[in-house]
Amino acid sequence: MNGIASVVDLRASLADLPTGDDDAAAAIAKRQSRLTKPLGSLGRLEELVAWLGRWQGRGAPRLDDVSVLVFAGNHGVAARGVSAYPASVTAQMVANFEAGGAAINQICKSVGATLRVIPLKLDAPTGDFTQSQAMTEAEFIEAVATGYDAVPASADLLCLGEMGIGNTTSASALAAALLGGGGERWAGRGTGLDDPGMARKREAIDAGLDRHQIHHADPLAACMIFGGRELAAILGATLAARRHRIPVLLDGFVATAAAAPLARLQQGALDHAQVAHCSAEAGHRGLCAELGMRPILDLDMRLGEGSGAALTVSVLRAALACHLGMATFDEAGVDERD
Amino acid sequence: MNGIASVVDLRASLADLPTGDDDAAAAIAKRQSRLTKPLGSLGRLEELVAWLGRWQGRGAPRLDDVSVLVFAGNHGVAARGVSAYPASVTAQMVANFEAGGAAINQICKSVGATLRVIPLKLDAPTGDFTQSQAMTEAEFIEAVATGYDAVPASADLLCLGEMGIGNTTSASALAAALLGGGGERWAGRGTGLDDPGMARKREAIDAGLDRHQIHHADPLAACMIFGGRELAAILGATLAARRHRIPVLLDGFVATAAAAPLARLQQGALDHAQVAHCSAEAGHRGLCAELGMRPILDLDMRLGEGSGAALTVSVLRAALACHLGMATFDEAGVDERD
Repeated sequence: MNGIASVVDLRASLADLPTGDDDAAAAIAKRQSRLTKPLGSLGRLEELVAWLGRWQGRGAPRLDDVSVLVFAGNHGVAARGVSAYPASVTAQMVANFEAGGAAINQICKSVGATLRVIPLKLDAPTGDFTQSQAMTEAEFIEAVATGYDAVPASADLLCLGEMGIGNTTSASALAAALLGGGGERWAGRGTGLDDPGMARKREAIDAGLDRHQIHHADPLAACMIFGGRELAAILGATLAARRHRIPVLLDGFVATAAAAPLARLQQGALDHAQVAHCSAEAGHRGLCAELGMRPILDLDMRLGEGSGAALTVSVLRAALACHLGMATFDEAGVDERD
Repeated sequence: MNGIASVVDLRASLADLPTGDDDAAAAIAKRQSRLTKPLGSLGRLEELVAWLGRWQGRGAPRLDDVSVLVFAGNHGVAARGVSAYPASVTAQMVANFEAGGAAINQICKSVGATLRVIPLKLDAPTGDFTQSQAMTEAEFIEAVATGYDAVPASADLLCLGEMGIGNTTSASALAAALLGGGGERWAGRGTGLDDPGMARKREAIDAGLDRHQIHHADPLAACMIFGGRELAAILGATLAARRHRIPVLLDGFVATAAAAPLARLQQGALDHAQVAHCSAEAGHRGLCAELGMRPILDLDMRLGEGSGAALTVSVLRAALACHLGMATFDEAGVDERD
């Protein structure tokens, strides 16, 4: 599979996913049991190193090449007053990313990651899902393919984030379509909605669900109907990473919702991915629980733009440094358990 | 106050603590409101930068000089079979720290922190608290002073950790003396105790509490009776950091218990400190709740040796990078809220 040119390609790719490398994971577990610490005492740091190795297929994982992709899109539903900010901010923030002035630029520098920002037809917002599908199948596949093709095959770790005024509304509607419930369950305050804005957001989600009668329907159809281009691109990038054996850190609510259709279509399709942090956005904790994914950090962040995913790279670097650099009991002459 | 030579000195120091710099914190909050992100959307990253600035007394906080101090001690109570490891491991792990082979060495390198390890009379364990006081007043003050004097006045941030076979038993008994409850409430599996070991640990804690009739008594007396030298040193270092206006990251259960007497003696005495991570050690979550402190990370770690505190430095570095490096709305030409 060299790319995604159709829904048929996408489904075929999902039906034939690479599995993790059990031998690499076993080699890592064996070394961890010999390092000078009580067994399991580094907790999730140990799990995360084993996860890196399993998906990289390496007994000694690497984080030499950490790639952060931020996809940006505009949303027809933004016209319904569902965001605290005007839609103009999407393109302005893309310019801010390119100028190095956003949070994600600083975090990438701090953790040693390479940032690439990919705007997706910002001057052509998706359709307002309360009135029509957000995307045609062709538009959806084009965005998926853009995400798929953006993944550098040589990356050791991929962080996925997004920017798009109105996209927590899209993500909420998508989560509702996949998992049940409506605006009441899934809508959060996004960039800082007031109460009237929250009412409009819940109404838009419920109107979309009602119009398209989509509950528990095909996950790809749900993404075409509700998801913006940046969500479709994250779906494509998550799939490409699996094919390239690259572990993935999903950022917050929108990125998790964007990848969720893969898990609904194919069990285990997100085994190569972790949710980097639990967003303060209201629906995220429940979404992670539904997917059986436990976020690594929980710092009340709700910025998006890959910020939580990039921040988590520092935890992985420390975890890997312990794994590769610690002495064993034998090397250090430390007594073992009584 | 140049040091701590007596309990009188210690109490005098506590009665005259420096307060935080409200102007610095206000300057930080003002800048945060102008940066290109929704207000508050970096969550705890924003809180932590304000906390750094408040205690450093700087509107632009620094993390140029991050110091990790790990104190090590041996415990008479270890002879009661309360640890999965023999007491010989304390000195062996100190040697491992000095040789660069432990987890804390790798994490310090990963996050850019300077490690110093301070063994405290390892060949003279404290008394077994089921039979006598762990320390005399003179021994206690000597350990407090060692910790106090070890703090480099120039540090921008201080991380405090410990090593000592048996010291979760000491910390549990100390927490019980300060906060109520006994072995059932406070004992955890430490480095990996089996069920019979857990029974011995709970019994030792309850026997100590019973012998010394210490519940809710003077916090310093509780530390002399139950605490090891490394706990007393952490208490002293936490106090010195406050006097030098250095923010403190406390590591897990033992470090938090060690600092807890300060909070019991003087309200606000730990305002310059954060609990870096919630340890998997059973009593830690409850101890933090009692102290009104919310750990920053929660990664099932239970290693001690300052590992969780040092790991958290990476989060602070990213938070500070955002604060210092991001563009404002005006600079970036990004529209503000509708």
